[in-house]
Parts: sequence; structure tokens; C-alpha cells
Amino acid sequence: MTQNTVEKTPVTLLGLGAMGTALARTWLAAGHPLTVWNRTPARATALAAEGARVADSAAEAVTANTLIVACLLDDASVDEVLADTDLADRDLVNLTTSTPAQARARAEWARERGARYLDGGIMAVPPMIGVPEAGGYVFYSGSRELFERHRETLAVPAGTTYVGEDAGFAALHDVALLSAMYGMFAGAAHAFALIRKEDIDPAALAPLLADWLVAMAPAVYRTADQLRSGDYTKGVVSDLAMQVAGTPTFLNTAEQQGVSPELLSPYFELMRRRLAEGSGEEDLTGVIDLLVH
Amino acid sequence: MTQNTVEKTPVTLLGLGAMGTALARTWLAAGHPLTVWNRTPARATALAAEGARVADSAAEAVTANTLIVACLLDDASVDEVLADTDLADRDLVNLTTSTPAQARARAEWARERGARYLDGGIMAVPPMIGVPEAGGYVFYSGSRELFERHRETLAVPAGTTYVGEDAGFAALHDVALLSAMYGMFAGAAHAFALIRKEDIDPAALAPLLADWLVAMAPAVYRTADQLRSGDYTKGVVSDLAMQVAGTPTFLNTAEQQGVSPELLSPYFELMRRRLAEGSGEEDLTGVIDLLVH
Repeated sequence: MTQNTVEKTPVTLLGLGAMGTALARTWLAAGHPLTVWNRTPARATALAAEGARVADSAAEAVTANTLIVACLLDDASVDEVLADTDLADRDLVNLTTSTPAQARARAEWARERGARYLDGGIMAVPPMIGVPEAGGYVFYSGSRELFERHRETLAVPAGTTYVGEDAGFAALHDVALLSAMYGMFAGAAHAFALIRKEDIDPAALAPLLADWLVAMAPAVYRTADQLRSGDYTKGVVSDLAMQVAGTPTFLNTAEQQGVSPELLSPYFELMRRRLAEGSGEEDLTGVIDLLVH
Repeated sequence: MTQNTVEKTPVTLLGLGAMGTALARTWLAAGHPLTVWNRTPARATALAAEGARVADSAAEAVTANTLIVACLLDDASVDEVLADTDLADRDLVNLTTSTPAQARARAEWARERGARYLDGGIMAVPPMIGVPEAGGYVFYSGSRELFERHRETLAVPAGTTYVGEDAGFAALHDVALLSAMYGMFAGAAHAFALIRKEDIDPAALAPLLADWLVAMAPAVYRTADQLRSGDYTKGVVSDLAMQVAGTPTFLNTAEQQGVSPELLSPYFELMRRRLAEGSGEEDLTGVIDLLVH
């Protein structure tokens, strides 16, 4: 039996934005029968030429297959698009960007309509889809049974990471990682701003910056270890008192270089508050306690 | 001729805090004659047992050798400690944490006293000193001749990266990279805060978080390329309009999880300001322009 004779799971895909289109192409290329629907039909036409069946309505697309993947603009779009569809006995995999609360509500909503539900959070941009070496993947949470059943099909466009039965966990992991990324980008923006008025090539700073961030990223393992044990002094290398003592150098340098400290000072302010609570011998981990109400 | 008969450059080291002590040990272990001085002599005693010569005063320590390394608390300490020393014809390597302006002023101050000057910014914590695989290194700037002359000696405790004749550049690179790191730590703190009230093990989040930050760090190469060309749309993957549209998901998730948005919102606010200027098709790079006065 050759690979071509193995029957591939048919997929219905709702939503053909940049991400949906990228997903569609990988399933078509892998030989999965694909039914697509998009609010504006123009985007579907190109895919039809690549072998996709184009449904005239979301209701028709949902009728076509058991596995329904939604990759829409936002949670409100999911409401609109699926309003007049029959989801009974369908396997709904929702890759639409959502908050954890929206994902949980959507799981309940799907259950009421007789569908099984899996929520996904995509850790990739469209050019990373179908390019395994790019390292993109999708967080999944909700029905583990559904995840296992469609694991192979879901693994076609990107890696899969299942993070729990709670339908909100995929979105929560997605938002947590992307939030951390924005923090890193904010730090990098400050770094590039600091050299703006100097005769320093940004392209010379970039490798130093990238290598340093890569070298320091594993600090999160120590943070996790401290959070688990509750002992924020565990394995501390440079304690909070010492780090707060160093902050004037950062703020003064920003001032000297004509750079607003607005992306740095909120973190430094939390460090100072934690130090004022008498936690000078701790690591920076106590800042996390101050963030949570 | 065996290695032991090769004459190693004698070093005078002023300042035996955690970092100075770590530096001292690597030079002693490598066979460099070492003269040390510290304000409180107790720290020097331990090193004497390991072969260091302990000077009674900073002046005596400076007289002992040509190569003088200062690793003191701050720039004011450099003033105090070196006030009554004769720096004429000395090679002063200042590893004390400084702002770029302090380093430039110190270079001029050293020149007036007849000394050659090299400034250093240490990209390592004490446990990384003398452990090449830990990846720590020191930025140097100022006299290139001085750097080349002592390159081998300076390379004993940690890697060396020379970044220019401008004495302030080592400090500027140091502050830029550490500022970016604090941004990344702030982002990671927010991520850990988001899962605080959920049944998610921080130790399960840590590898996902570390790997994601490592995967996203090379984005700084694209930023540098855009800064050089002045075209902030170059190679853009997810444009500013799309990213700003995504920010409510991050802020709403923070609110749902009872987490203050204070570490994320300043960056999002700059994104919104840049978008309002009509830069929706750009990458995030325009935020840097808003930071610089």
C-alpha cells in the first residue's frame, strides 16, 4: 500500500485570511480533501484552482465534513459565521484568537449544539505554516479525545502541543507567551533607541542583542523553580537589593541618550516596591506577586 | 619551554566584591602575579592564601604594576579610591559599572593623569567568570592599543568584545543589552502572573516560554535591517495595524486573570500612537522613533 492510497481526513476550513489560507494550502498539499468558505469569496477562488471545494455558505461547509476548523477574525466572527450552521456531531477545532474566557464560553456553546470542541492558539505567523524548521506550533486544549483523533491532521500545518482539558488553556498559553515576547520586543526597542544618536550600526548591535537575549531566556527556569518552592531566594545570583542599586545607571543612561524610560521604569518601579517590602535578598520573582490582584 | 616559564602579565586589582573576587581567582589560577586591594581588608585575606599579594593602600597597589584593573561599586568609588594614587604611565582598565557619560569623563580624567584608559562593561554575573561555556564576556572600549596589548590577560576571566575607541561605548552596549534583558524579564513576569490562579505548573510553562523567547529573539535582526534602510515595512510579517488589533485580547486576558497590565500597556500605548500617525503597514520598529527625543 503506497502513501497515496491512505485515506486522509477531509477538513472544512472556515476563514481564509492570511493564516487560514496558509493552513488550507498545507492540507491541500498533503492530500486532505478540503472544503473552504470565506465571507468574501475571492480568496476561495485561488484555492479552488489548487483543489479546494468552495462552499457557498458556512452552513454548507459545515455539512460537508465532520472536522470543522474555524480560523476567523475574532470571537464575535465565530458567533456570526456559525449562527446558522448545524454543529450536531461535529468536531469543532477553533483556531480563532480568543481570550481564555471566550474559549471556555465557546466550548460550552459548542457542547450545547452537540459538537465536540478543541480550542487552539497559533504560535506562528503565516509564513511559518507548513515549514516545520520554522518552529511554529499550535497550542490545543479542550477534548483530549478530539485532539488524539485528529492529531495527525492537525500536525500537517504546524507542530501540536496539548495543554489540558480546560478549553481556555490554549488561549492562556498563547497569550502568556506572546505577552512575554512583547516585553522582550519592548526591551529591544529601548536598546535600539539608546544607540540612535551614536555612530553604532544597528546591524552590529543586533547579533549581540539576540545572543544575549537567547543566553538570558533560560532564567525563566529558575523563576519557575522559585515559584514552585515559594522560596524566591533559591539559586539567586544577583539579588534584588543589588539589582535595584543598579537601576540608576540604566535610567541615567536613557536620559543621557535622550531616550524615554517609559518601557523600563514600570518594571524598575515594581522592583523598588518589592525591595521596600524587605525582600532584598530575593531574586526578581517577587515582582510577579505584585502583578496579581 | 613549558607553559609555566612563560611570563604572565602582573595585574593589580582594586575592589574585591563578588565580581572582583571572581576575577582575582581566575588570574591567580592562570598564574598571573596579582596584587589586590580592597577597602575592607578581610576579603583580601582569603586571596592572600591563594597567592595574591595584598597591598596596604590603593596607592601602593597602583605602584606595584602597570596594568591596573578597577572593579569598584560605582563611579564615585573610582574617584575616592584613585584620588591619592599616581596613575602616570599606567594602563587603567575600568570595569566599574558606569553610564557612557561617566566612562567618557573617566577616560579624560585618566588622560590628564598620564594613564592610558580602557573601559569595560561586564556581561556576566560572578559565577560565570572563569567558566567559558557559561558564555559571559566583557565589552571593552577606549584605547584599542591598550586592548590589544592586554587582550590575552583580559581574556582569562571572560570573553572580550571590543566595541570602539569611544570610551563610552562599552557602557552603552552593556546598558543596552541589560535593558533589553529587563524588558524580557518583565514580559516573562507578566506571563507567569497570568497562570498564577490556574492549575498550570510554572515548571511546565518555563520550557515553552524559554523556547518561544529564544525563537523570537532573532526578530532584532529584522529590526536592525529596517532601522538601517529607514523602511520599516521591509520584510514585515504581521503589520502594526494587525498587531494593535490584537492588543485587546492581551489586555482582556490580563484583566480576566486578575493581572495588572502595567508591564505591557506602555508598549501597546506606543504601538497605538505610532498607528495613529498612519504607520499601519509598518513593523513595530516605529516605536523606537517615539522613544527618542
